[in-house]
Amino acid sequence: MREQPLMVNAFDPARGPVADAEVQSLITRRARVLGPSYKLFYDDPVWFVRGEGVRLYDQAGNAYLDAYNNVPVVGHCHPRVVEAVARQASTLNTHTRYLSDVVVSYAERLLATFPAPLSNVMFTCTGSESNDLAFRIANAYTGNRGIIVTSNGYHGLTAAVAAASPSLGRGVMLGDHVRTVPAPDAYRVGRDQVGPKFEADVRAAIDDLARHGIAPAAIIFDTIFSSDGVLSDPPGFIAGAVAAVREAGGLYIADEVQPGFARTGDAMWGFQRHGVVPDLATLGKPMGNGIPIAGVVSAPETLRSFADTARYFNTFGGNHVSCAAALAVLEVIEEEQLMANAQRVGRYLRDGLSKLAAQDERIGEVRGAGLFIGVDFVRDKKTREPGPDTALAVVNRLRQLRVLIAAAGPRGHALKIRPPLPFTTGDADEFLDLMGRALRDV
Amino acid sequence: MREQPLMVNAFDPARGPVADAEVQSLITRRARVLGPSYKLFYDDPVWFVRGEGVRLYDQAGNAYLDAYNNVPVVGHCHPRVVEAVARQASTLNTHTRYLSDVVVSYAERLLATFPAPLSNVMFTCTGSESNDLAFRIANAYTGNRGIIVTSNGYHGLTAAVAAASPSLGRGVMLGDHVRTVPAPDAYRVGRDQVGPKFEADVRAAIDDLARHGIAPAAIIFDTIFSSDGVLSDPPGFIAGAVAAVREAGGLYIADEVQPGFARTGDAMWGFQRHGVVPDLATLGKPMGNGIPIAGVVSAPETLRSFADTARYFNTFGGNHVSCAAALAVLEVIEEEQLMANAQRVGRYLRDGLSKLAAQDERIGEVRGAGLFIGVDFVRDKKTREPGPDTALAVVNRLRQLRVLIAAAGPRGHALKIRPPLPFTTGDADEFLDLMGRALRDV
Repeated sequence: MREQPLMVNAFDPARGPVADAEVQSLITRRARVLGPSYKLFYDDPVWFVRGEGVRLYDQAGNAYLDAYNNVPVVGHCHPRVVEAVARQASTLNTHTRYLSDVVVSYAERLLATFPAPLSNVMFTCTGSESNDLAFRIANAYTGNRGIIVTSNGYHGLTAAVAAASPSLGRGVMLGDHVRTVPAPDAYRVGRDQVGPKFEADVRAAIDDLARHGIAPAAIIFDTIFSSDGVLSDPPGFIAGAVAAVREAGGLYIADEVQPGFARTGDAMWGFQRHGVVPDLATLGKPMGNGIPIAGVVSAPETLRSFADTARYFNTFGGNHVSCAAALAVLEVIEEEQLMANAQRVGRYLRDGLSKLAAQDERIGEVRGAGLFIGVDFVRDKKTREPGPDTALAVVNRLRQLRVLIAAAGPRGHALKIRPPLPFTTGDADEFLDLMGRALRDV
Repeated sequence: MREQPLMVNAFDPARGPVADAEVQSLITRRARVLGPSYKLFYDDPVWFVRGEGVRLYDQAGNAYLDAYNNVPVVGHCHPRVVEAVARQASTLNTHTRYLSDVVVSYAERLLATFPAPLSNVMFTCTGSESNDLAFRIANAYTGNRGIIVTSNGYHGLTAAVAAASPSLGRGVMLGDHVRTVPAPDAYRVGRDQVGPKFEADVRAAIDDLARHGIAPAAIIFDTIFSSDGVLSDPPGFIAGAVAAVREAGGLYIADEVQPGFARTGDAMWGFQRHGVVPDLATLGKPMGNGIPIAGVVSAPETLRSFADTARYFNTFGGNHVSCAAALAVLEVIEEEQLMANAQRVGRYLRDGLSKLAAQDERIGEVRGAGLFIGVDFVRDKKTREPGPDTALAVVNRLRQLRVLIAAAGPRGHALKIRPPLPFTTGDADEFLDLMGRALRDV
């Protein structure tokens, strides 16, 4: 198996300048100030200057169909969010050590979408901060420090969560308290076997931690297993693994940064598809449609040990402008019925992709839930060996055809289709047409 | 010496309901959704609904003079920042894996304010994320893991930086790789001795780390030593301590979250007052006037080892809206000459406070730089024993008089005066008048 690259589909400046001199000039200026750690998408990077709905526009005025970005969940530059941000920014923007109706009203509205006993929210600014805080809470509650993650999981970039994010690559060391389990890949393991195998793998990880004197504080995964290649089915398959961790005294942290906010179509939160209520749910990316806001949702009881030892204050966490943006997002999801749209258009898109797959030996499986869809490329439909080269070629061909998409999975072999939720069947038709063309071209 | 409380000046709900029923109702709703870790300021918490310049307005329409909040550095709801945010939010808001002129132009403008060789910036969303990233960079560059901090330092709330933030209190464990040194308190140590003593303490910490097989990755402090009680002088006193860490192979991380962005009046960055260029400068709070944006500034060379092992991508870090806000902040600081204002009004305010101090046995020293001012309360001017009770009483009396301020220092004995930078001499007169009244009343 080849070494995990630092990033699938990264622009490589060593390959020489790009064709457009103006674009190359911006690439050069960017490298000079942002430094060596920053990567760009694509062999031929894209420069955007405007966004609206499910479209982004480049500096030459070309429109791109955005089938990738989950952050602008209600669409790029949604006027309701823009208006809420502008109004709040001109009225008041301060922090949670003063009383504020905005933050409390938003928290109430958000928590109404969660099942009992999840009735508290702590605000952060990023998914990374949310997972970092969830680890601190889990450590305090359980008294344990072990963390279990899937083999290509990604949970963020603070030191603590990077040490539990194998998808960052072999250069970023996992913690000695971290164990990885194989991602629950039903396509390769078998639909009936994936749940039992996931549970057995987690039990083996707990055993191995115990052999090192470590008990689990938590298992963390997102219920769509995004960076593991979009592993959605069958609903409910996570139950055994979660039960095993709880038996050993650990918590289940549902990382909702990817599947949350109605994207899976069936429910507001990814864990609800599986019928398993987590101990902590961590929120991020789509929460403010791009305005930084994130959080950790919990039962009050779970927070008690943490609260007894540590105060919590995040200067920007729960600031008024971010809360106003986030409140507008919840309102738009409800008023525009974006969950039902995700379910309906997601099914339409999966059906169309399945038709393409039936005629293409390189597509092993189309899967997903709502508007979170994976297309699994293989070298051989019988052996189901991953086909990352085709996936990468399709991603770059679609970029030329002005469709944004990305690849995921341990080998980068699965397309990750994850558009803003106001994606229509017309957008889906356009996507399917250009996807068919890309498949013919590569 | 008494135990460090979880938070100086926190509202204690166990003391019963507050007088205003409407305020109490919001306190109750807030506690129900935000949970047990959140604290409010003051015995009698304040509910704000509007902000403008250096004023905040409560739900009953009362105006408060803001002498505390450094985040709204160019003033609450500055129209230039509001306009930039609204314009950018309605145009485009995406991430750094696409090309963007906004993020590059802002980075160029920001870096122009730094001395050589600091010419790269990496964007995060919070000061915590910046310090966490700086630790990861320092670990990669030095190959070491030791961290040295001052005894009441605060650097944020991710697991890694909380473990190096003694001011969070004894409930939050310091890492086994962390050593604390006494804060360089010239008032108690002597102005001539504070530099040599700080250096000697740091050398002792390095020695103790070495005795445990640990070499220093970094020393981190903010050059105004905000949570240690605002320790500003004499300029240059940090040089020996920094040299000692560098000799031992570690870096100097200047935490500019507090003193940065022109606040100290003499320079844009706190470290410039001391004439010592850091290896890494971390930015936060005031950067976007309340819109979440933060960063790490470095020489490209310092980033190389980190970049060779880890890609860097922070979804919201360097988003267009935050960069637009931050660019407007730099423009306003320059156009409204807020650095010169900080110097002039800061001196005026310190002079006025010194006059109050001359007539008051409870004030040991007035110190600071620009609009970052500390007032050190003592029980006895001879022994210089800290006087936290008076400090806390003054903070709460000033809240009744509608002036916002806070206390800092290991005992909470130093007032921390840190207003938005458009503070005028008229505002200073008002502050001095009410401060005099508070001193008479407590």
